Amino acid sequence: MSAIDVVVMAAGKGTRMKSRLPKVLHSLAGRALLRHVMDTVHSLAARRVVVITGNGAADVEAAVSGWAQAGGAEPPRFARQEPQLGTGHAVQQALPLLPDDGTTLILNGDVPLIEAATLRRLLEQGDAEQLALLSVEMVDPSGYGRIIRQGGSVRAIVEQKDASEEQRRIREVYTGFMAVPNAMLKRWLSRLTNDNAQGEYYLTDIVQLAVKDGVKVVAVQAADPLQVEGVNSPLQLAQLERAFQLRQARRLMEQGVRLADPARFDVRGQLDCGQDVDIDVNCVFEGNVSLGDGVRIGANCVIANAAIAAGAVIHPFTHIDGERGGVKVGEGALVGPFARLRPGADLGPDVHVGNFVEIKNSSLARGAKANHLAYLGDAVVGERVNYGAGSITANYDGANKHRTVIEDDVHIGSNCVLVAPVKIGRGATVGGGSTITKDAAPGTLAVARGRQVAIEGWQRPKKAPKG
Amino acid sequence: MSAIDVVVMAAGKGTRMKSRLPKVLHSLAGRALLRHVMDTVHSLAARRVVVITGNGAADVEAAVSGWAQAGGAEPPRFARQEPQLGTGHAVQQALPLLPDDGTTLILNGDVPLIEAATLRRLLEQGDAEQLALLSVEMVDPSGYGRIIRQGGSVRAIVEQKDASEEQRRIREVYTGFMAVPNAMLKRWLSRLTNDNAQGEYYLTDIVQLAVKDGVKVVAVQAADPLQVEGVNSPLQLAQLERAFQLRQARRLMEQGVRLADPARFDVRGQLDCGQDVDIDVNCVFEGNVSLGDGVRIGANCVIANAAIAAGAVIHPFTHIDGERGGVKVGEGALVGPFARLRPGADLGPDVHVGNFVEIKNSSLARGAKANHLAYLGDAVVGERVNYGAGSITANYDGANKHRTVIEDDVHIGSNCVLVAPVKIGRGATVGGGSTITKDAAPGTLAVARGRQVAIEGWQRPKKAPKG
Amino acid sequence: MSAIDVVVMAAGKGTRMKSRLPKVLHSLAGRALLRHVMDTVHSLAARRVVVITGNGAADVEAAVSGWAQAGGAEPPRFARQEPQLGTGHAVQQALPLLPDDGTTLILNGDVPLIEAATLRRLLEQGDAEQLALLSVEMVDPSGYGRIIRQGGSVRAIVEQKDASEEQRRIREVYTGFMAVPNAMLKRWLSRLTNDNAQGEYYLTDIVQLAVKDGVKVVAVQAADPLQVEGVNSPLQLAQLERAFQLRQARRLMEQGVRLADPARFDVRGQLDCGQDVDIDVNCVFEGNVSLGDGVRIGANCVIANAAIAAGAVIHPFTHIDGERGGVKVGEGALVGPFARLRPGADLGPDVHVGNFVEIKNSSLARGAKANHLAYLGDAVVGERVNYGAGSITANYDGANKHRTVIEDDVHIGSNCVLVAPVKIGRGATVGGGSTITKDAAPGTLAVARGRQVAIEGWQRPKKAPKG
Repeated sequence: MSAIDVVVMAAGKGTRMKSRLPKVLHSLAGRALLRHVMDTVHSLAARRVVVITGNGAADVEAAVSGWAQAGGAEPPRFARQEPQLGTGHAVQQALPLLPDDGTTLILNGDVPLIEAATLRRLLEQGDAEQLALLSVEMVDPSGYGRIIRQGGSVRAIVEQKDASEEQRRIREVYTGFMAVPNAMLKRWLSRLTNDNAQGEYYLTDIVQLAVKDGVKVVAVQAADPLQVEGVNSPLQLAQLERAFQLRQARRLMEQGVRLADPARFDVRGQLDCGQDVDIDVNCVFEGNVSLGDGVRIGANCVIANAAIAAGAVIHPFTHIDGERGGVKVGEGALVGPFARLRPGADLGPDVHVGNFVEIKNSSLARGAKANHLAYLGDAVVGERVNYGAGSITANYDGANKHRTVIEDDVHIGSNCVLVAPVKIGRGATVGGGSTITKDAAPGTLAVARGRQVAIEGWQRPKKAPKG
Repeated sequence: MSAIDVVVMAAGKGTRMKSRLPKVLHSLAGRALLRHVMDTVHSLAARRVVVITGNGAADVEAAVSGWAQAGGAEPPRFARQEPQLGTGHAVQQALPLLPDDGTTLILNGDVPLIEAATLRRLLEQGDAEQLALLSVEMVDPSGYGRIIRQGGSVRAIVEQKDASEEQRRIREVYTGFMAVPNAMLKRWLSRLTNDNAQGEYYLTDIVQLAVKDGVKVVAVQAADPLQVEGVNSPLQLAQLERAFQLRQARRLMEQGVRLADPARFDVRGQLDCGQDVDIDVNCVFEGNVSLGDGVRIGANCVIANAAIAAGAVIHPFTHIDGERGGVKVGEGALVGPFARLRPGADLGPDVHVGNFVEIKNSSLARGAKANHLAYLGDAVVGERVNYGAGSITANYDGANKHRTVIEDDVHIGSNCVLVAPVKIGRGATVGGGSTITKDAAPGTLAVARGRQVAIEGWQRPKKAPKG
Repeated sequence: MSAIDVVVMAAGKGTRMKSRLPKVLHSLAGRALLRHVMDTVHSLAARRVVVITGNGAADVEAAVSGWAQAGGAEPPRFARQEPQLGTGHAVQQALPLLPDDGTTLILNGDVPLIEAATLRRLLEQGDAEQLALLSVEMVDPSGYGRIIRQGGSVRAIVEQKDASEEQRRIREVYTGFMAVPNAMLKRWLSRLTNDNAQGEYYLTDIVQLAVKDGVKVVAVQAADPLQVEGVNSPLQLAQLERAFQLRQARRLMEQGVRLADPARFDVRGQLDCGQDVDIDVNCVFEGNVSLGDGVRIGANCVIANAAIAAGAVIHPFTHIDGERGGVKVGEGALVGPFARLRPGADLGPDVHVGNFVEIKNSSLARGAKANHLAYLGDAVVGERVNYGAGSITANYDGANKHRTVIEDDVHIGSNCVLVAPVKIGRGATVGGGSTITKDAAPGTLAVARGRQVAIEGWQRPKKAPKG
């Protein structure tokens, strides 16, 4: 196959999105529409990628450059289309950046679910000195340009308004994707006119130029309408999101993952699952999440960027957000309900983190427990430690963060404050209600509390009279 | 147009609801069915509104009077129908309250989604010395009374059981709504008989009386079957609720609001959104909520009666319930996850309220933070205050509530108790674990804690032997 | 009717489940597929029940024996099928355990929703010296064995691949269930051959043996395809789960329960509801839960094994898990949001349990309140007690659990620790921030805190310079 170049159309305004954000930067499943496309393009190993920008060009270009950098890809080139005079005009802007040989694939930055295999099938056809269009069969094709075939080749694309009664019954429509030899593309684009009602240059007009030139036009059918569906409004975005999420859910179920309700399941990123994973209703996964064998995720969990080892159980209403730094949950650990694990939470095997407990940038070694209403920040917690209800690591003095070290087998009572930097030695005990400002030696009992006194005959406050 | 009177049928029992509550008082999207109807009627500027009550009459009348008062509307009149002898009998009870001139619109208190524009179209026809029926085309009309047309007018309504094979194929059915000149209504109602299997007086019998009298009967078609759907069972109520919620979701998306899942989105009241608002899955909005430009609402939030300013981010699992008094969230504030804002919570710009934090009747000025496991009640918190993890305002002495004042730049340590009334002066610091009962002067460090002592060779309790 | 025996096929591998768990032990609505079947079989009062096991036989047999014991049923017999040579071979393994008289019902352990009434209809036919098959009409029958009828009886079951064009249009298919007189079953099974492509013994081959023998074969139609749907993959499991949940939702709505969204409602066990119960979106019920008249359950609650009395209100995000021991919520109690009730939580009438509060193995008498950030474990709390924000019962000394007793009318301040065993006498007050280690006498004020001191001119820590 000859060299592949790619032109991505990303200049559109997306008026119906009613947003300040350029349309192609809206998110589907946590990634910008255009990023879905760029990631797919990346897998084609193209010689050159040109992104046509226009509306919000600076933002779009910055975003694309950022993704390319993060993905280790060669940065694509940009061609600005200003003003925007139609799809043909858009591709014309890319011509100076395209070599004279090879084949160009043209696709749309707002059609996120196109698959590489489909593009490869299209390119194979476009490579053969012919014009290859991507088409799709629709249940309801009204409004779309119909593919008029004659024998094995395409004779024309006819718009809805120009279609005869018979042509309107055709269900094969053009998708906006094409592959065309560069030499031909350049020749045809130079001959486009804007002699139409809108005064625009239409890329689809090259079909009739091809026919006129006696070049064969072929149509390759996409297997799946979802792949070629574009986004023009928040409603379409939501519909595509749901379709995509259901597709992801089905894939995971085919791998053996058990979902209590595939319609209440969202993955915005990559979810890798071991065997016998159960995921209850209404869970959301973001970024990179891995779930080991036998992991159970309770209802209503939100989990981002976490590695959860085999046999761990995440109870309902658990929020894990390891966005920077990640979160680790060890084998057989129990987390939640109502737990929050923040970046740098690193739970060892069989650790228990219970309700209303927040863990941030802290490690808990095997068998440690923080079961109730507690905060651990910037702490190193040893094995089998019992961290009492209501206890807090005061890791922040208002200016700097400090570390707390709690060695193996320590027992921290309830409602304690550990004022960092501080270290509680192996096997020590901290009495309930203590504010600990100095290190506790191993094996000691550290207490810091007032003596209990009883005041007899004490009068409760009375309800104040109104007014 | 002549004067408009309105008769609302609200006497029905709703046996299939299996409820102690009168049927018309059941809620759809947070408002009683009858209130939906009354609010729509209110926009018609009717001369007189008569509500026919019967089952649960006292409750229904009290509710209607209450809404009218709250809405500033003139209270409607009530006509009790006891016993209930059919729809015609119901309207007969209203006759003494209806003037002889003008046109009466008859509608049902259990059909909540009727729109004012549809009623106006019906009234225009009913105004012209003719009987105007509201009809609708149904995909499956079985069980409904078919509209038998002859030329431009209606010849009869034929019930399912009386319909011929051919008539059963008619998909236009009567909806229960009509508009009729008062003079005719009075004449025809006086001629109704209960000479039928049920022994009831049917309102629809006036159609044949009109035909007999040579008065033209016309049918106005409702655009949308949802508008004329009634509620007879919890299943129908749930179905109508979902249809209504989807309709609201579509409207918001058309305005540019981005919903992660329109099928998991509930608005029970009024939701006003700025530009570029994102709402994640499974959120519920109640009462009056406004979201400024760029606000992001995380998954699983429940938000009632709140004004959330531009750029604020509400993380998942946040519960805001400003039912009395409202809640305000300032620009760029970050709230949640697992935060609860109660009535009178007033967060300034860039305030942070984090996990397991409850705020009630308290203001936090710009940049103040309460990030972990804390309670602020009846407090005034200054700018840039850092309110430590686990700290509590003891605002209630068992009899009365007292205020806590925390001035700008104060740093409150962890697990403190501020016993109100108390004031912490500007720039003061409260040491972790302190119970503060007296005011702290500006710039001072206030501490109230026991001295830390170490007890050597302390023996941990041993596990008691069983039995 | 003659004696009934039952053979349950539970030897299959379920390769597409991709699980270590035997297929029939996968859960639908919180119960194993096979347990649904066994519970239904239980209601038939069969003489003998034989479960054919094979894959994961030990696990399956242990599970079945456990359920039988828990349900008070006579334990079924097991017949192992190793290796697995087809459905006919499976039933052959049961023959030694089946008497020569009576009728055997054959059903599948992976078809969970079959109803007893359907099985009884099938048995009535199988009882009459004829072979009775259970069939069902399918909208899309492709892939299933078609029922070929001749007059009132069945002539054959024709597999998809062997079916003529005309036969493929038949929508009545065989379900895998049959009832057959034992004597005939034994005769026919002994004549089965594995002379086919798979080399397996097919149970369905007995249909042609019956026809050959001149025995009448009849087909009884199941009313509902759901009843005969089997589970072969996680996707099918999820689909059946949703269908079952919707069916449960409808049944509850027919009883008058109001569900905000029937598609976001899960019952995994038994939910009994009084009159006028409202359940908001996205709630999950597990085990045995009862809700009294007028109970309201807020959005996103997870409730297991609890009895909630009339008029109680459970606010959103409440987690009740009474798995062992149960949880009780009294009349008119208010719970949540963000509350967690654990086993042995027993709330009296009008008790309030608020946000970020955990209750475990504790009773709260009428009118007691724990509204904010608190933990009560192993405690007895009297009437009208006010348990302050942030207060903790230190019930665990690291080795043993101890009880806390708080008598009527006690007021516990904020952020207290009650170190158990300890008793706070009637009407006593505990000052905020106190750690209480000794009993407090009735009517006294118990305080244990440091004296507040002010340190003037205190210098806050400064942000450390980086690196």
